[in-house]
Amino acid sequence: MTFDMSLIQRGARLRRTPFFEATQKYGAKGYTVYNHMLFPICFDDLEAEYWHLIHHVTLWDVSVERQVEITGPDAFRFTNLLTPRDLSRCRVGQGKYVVITDQEGGIINDPVLLRLGENHFWLALADSDVLLWARGVALHAGMDVQIREPDVSPLQIQGPKSKPVVQTLFGEAVLKLKYYEFLETDLDGIPVVVTRTGWSGEVGYEVYLRDGSRGVELWERIMEAGKPHNIAPTGPSDIRRIEAGILNYGADMTLENNPYEVGLGWLVNLKQEADFIGRRALERVRAEGVQRKLVGIVIEGPRIEFNMTKWPVSVGGQAVGRVTSAIYSPRLEKNIGYAMLPVAYAALGTRLTVTLPGGEPRPARVVEKPFVDPQKLIPKS
Amino acid sequence: MTFDMSLIQRGARLRRTPFFEATQKYGAKGYTVYNHMLFPICFDDLEAEYWHLIHHVTLWDVSVERQVEITGPDAFRFTNLLTPRDLSRCRVGQGKYVVITDQEGGIINDPVLLRLGENHFWLALADSDVLLWARGVALHAGMDVQIREPDVSPLQIQGPKSKPVVQTLFGEAVLKLKYYEFLETDLDGIPVVVTRTGWSGEVGYEVYLRDGSRGVELWERIMEAGKPHNIAPTGPSDIRRIEAGILNYGADMTLENNPYEVGLGWLVNLKQEADFIGRRALERVRAEGVQRKLVGIVIEGPRIEFNMTKWPVSVGGQAVGRVTSAIYSPRLEKNIGYAMLPVAYAALGTRLTVTLPGGEPRPARVVEKPFVDPQKLIPKS
Repeated sequence: MTFDMSLIQRGARLRRTPFFEATQKYGAKGYTVYNHMLFPICFDDLEAEYWHLIHHVTLWDVSVERQVEITGPDAFRFTNLLTPRDLSRCRVGQGKYVVITDQEGGIINDPVLLRLGENHFWLALADSDVLLWARGVALHAGMDVQIREPDVSPLQIQGPKSKPVVQTLFGEAVLKLKYYEFLETDLDGIPVVVTRTGWSGEVGYEVYLRDGSRGVELWERIMEAGKPHNIAPTGPSDIRRIEAGILNYGADMTLENNPYEVGLGWLVNLKQEADFIGRRALERVRAEGVQRKLVGIVIEGPRIEFNMTKWPVSVGGQAVGRVTSAIYSPRLEKNIGYAMLPVAYAALGTRLTVTLPGGEPRPARVVEKPFVDPQKLIPKS
Repeated sequence: MTFDMSLIQRGARLRRTPFFEATQKYGAKGYTVYNHMLFPICFDDLEAEYWHLIHHVTLWDVSVERQVEITGPDAFRFTNLLTPRDLSRCRVGQGKYVVITDQEGGIINDPVLLRLGENHFWLALADSDVLLWARGVALHAGMDVQIREPDVSPLQIQGPKSKPVVQTLFGEAVLKLKYYEFLETDLDGIPVVVTRTGWSGEVGYEVYLRDGSRGVELWERIMEAGKPHNIAPTGPSDIRRIEAGILNYGADMTLENNPYEVGLGWLVNLKQEADFIGRRALERVRAEGVQRKLVGIVIEGPRIEFNMTKWPVSVGGQAVGRVTSAIYSPRLEKNIGYAMLPVAYAALGTRLTVTLPGGEPRPARVVEKPFVDPQKLIPKS
């Protein structure tokens, strides 16, 4: 049965991805909206998709990671102004996970940045209009840059069997990519950028399609190459990304958070010479310390459903914070997640109470994150 | 049957409105996403909701019209910089329909602006992150302003019987409001702003809730006051707004369009002394004339479904443009809508071919808009 689009769509306001017809053909069961675009989020149940990702290889339509492209003589200087990372350490052909911060140090977005040329950058965005932010900043910045959304739509190929799939498609060269490196290539004339990145904590790649008219063709080519490896189209796995300690913008961090309190302080380089937006605010936070922290939690008792709201956290009957993500890990056989808590309650082992929808109180405690495979996760790139 | 939220939601990334529980209780059948928030779009079928709006009164949860609040000593000057309208003509207590334009004259948003004080403005937004745009502009603008999203969530009460409903709730004073005027008041302590505005072409009001903790209470009070007048919760009516010539941001206009080509040139005041963003680009467009225009169209033949994509328009076998909105009007017994066309094909009476999904070609022609009740529509406020 095809998903009834009229449940989430009225008129032609929301964009469809270049792979939309393929996601319909392959039985997408639900779509959310992300960067004003329809985002297929499941083809099967969450747990089946999770096991497929762990054991095989999965294909995700993440075209909603829209790009902001920055070019022009001052593109390097301007892009470095947008992020607290030191981009002088980013070679052409290399990518970086970055945060974009506002003047208060609040997180506007946490894109993957690709440096395609000395003065040519892409930001693969989480769900916020960085195009508008960047154009607003550029207005009086006195720099010579062009800022636009190019025709670029990423797919993710994630899972332990992703290597042979991309090898079949793009040859040996792609296997040499180190984490966060990329390659500009094509697949019989379909122009793509292939990156060694992903949102899963598993081995994985992203294929950035550079010609929106060839989406279904690319999708089918990947499905064909993946067939011997049991590839399946799925949504991104929230179970796996929470196990891996990966954050979801809008849930685990928002404009109200600075990078330090969500554990992304390593993306802030205060020692670099270049100025960046939010520097003074972040210097202050760094000097004074954070007021609250995003911590790992385990929620005791029976299996929980994936949280659709930010559940209240209390200590001794006092409301102290909120759960930002929580889900059952079938591999750990535990309810795991994150909570934003005042530093007074953020120490490992702190006992908490989480109130589930309907009002059931559940014992919980602060634990280390990531929950799974720390050695494989988030190499600092 | 309650809508299965997991079809459009994964985790707590998307915000719920203060009226969410009420919309569930009253049987919302579908939700879209707008400004990162869940937006109930239907409680019944489109045509039933349309007739209810025409004959009675309807209640819509449009909390997704998030506000950007601009305050501070330079708030007037800064807000006037954001829009081509001349805000020196906007009194305190008055609202204006405005466009927000970028440096190229492209439309970023088309909010209702309310002036709550000499230096206190709200922008009730269509679906784009104007908060980020405005903060980006403010960065180097050298003006003393604060820009934030306040706890404000609008409802719309629309339809010919809306007057007695708001009279019951807010007394005689509210009936004296002229189009685009507003009143700050409360309902037994629930703080609200009531405006004589709406997205329907019918008589209508908006009630901006100023305390998100009291949403369900306000909703129930309105339903109670509306009971004698046969009030029903519905989504906004696309049939009625298209009849009225009202545009939908994201569908009928985007960042790629300037105000002149979508018929919103009356929102641009080039004679004002104050500078505004996009002035030079818009002066150029004004001098040179537009390349393309958004026109009214009638599509012949049997009843069409509401367009979910931008259908191709051709003339003599040549692709020339796109339908942006198209729907069947049960009152006119016609398929009506808008198309973006090169000026060469924009003259009234021009014969077009519209290709429906599936490939069926349909004769169409350029007609005048609005389609219904021009005398009641869009008083220039």
